Amino acid sequence: MGVTSFVLHPRLKADAIFIADWVLSRVLLMDDSRYSWLVLVPRHQGAVEIFDLDGSERGLLTEEIARAARALKDITGCAKINIGALGNLVPQLHVHIVARNEGDAAWPGPVWGSGTAVRYDAAAREAMLANLRARS
Amino acid sequence: MGVTSFVLHPRLKADAIFIADWVLSRVLLMDDSRYSWLVLVPRHQGAVEIFDLDGSERGLLTEEIARAARALKDITGCAKINIGALGNLVPQLHVHIVARNEGDAAWPGPVWGSGTAVRYDAAAREAMLANLRARS
Repeated sequence: MGVTSFVLHPRLKADAIFIADWVLSRVLLMDDSRYSWLVLVPRHQGAVEIFDLDGSERGLLTEEIARAARALKDITGCAKINIGALGNLVPQLHVHIVARNEGDAAWPGPVWGSGTAVRYDAAAREAMLANLRARS
Repeated sequence: MGVTSFVLHPRLKADAIFIADWVLSRVLLMDDSRYSWLVLVPRHQGAVEIFDLDGSERGLLTEEIARAARALKDITGCAKINIGALGNLVPQLHVHIVARNEGDAAWPGPVWGSGTAVRYDAAAREAMLANLRARS
């Protein structure tokens, strides 16, 4: 799977916080306290599109997306989970999983490209990471 | 899988055109000529989130997403495929697969909520449908 040579894109490294490595994906918390927002990055160096993964990797990715979505829903009690793989600016294949609620900063539109991230303060970030590590 | 009682959400019915039923999903062409844009709707009545599907359905959905993405890439030669499952306005689980290019109407932002759809004229719609039916 090219796992040994995996390097996270510098934009993702700058904008998000490491949570864990699952079987396929690196799991990140987007450093934007406006939303509870995870990013899964399959550790398959060079993958850009979903069809760059092989079938078994796609199966893993789907299960990891469902696991992340379930954890966010359980932790936040959100109204809706949004899932997106865009990559117009950051080509490294990555999947956003975002807890959404009526009245949030971008509702009902997409979060991508909407406004400016509000970084967590240290206490809120540690609380969120502890919650995610315990429940996902 | 609740297939027998499947009813397409009226908003999807109004905004998109039937292409085919694959094993799990109804495949639609979004009636918006600004983009080459498919929508997959798993025929699992009542599913809202990815974790409302069972594991075998999720496996099918992933393969159908990859198939649709590959077809769009082959037909259009686009720069990037965008994939999204939002559902903030239409709760019925559905997955967008959109061919994106630098300079398109929403680039590099997301297509959802951006501007107003430009419906296909009859000739362009039939050409696109024929192409998709032949190549996906």
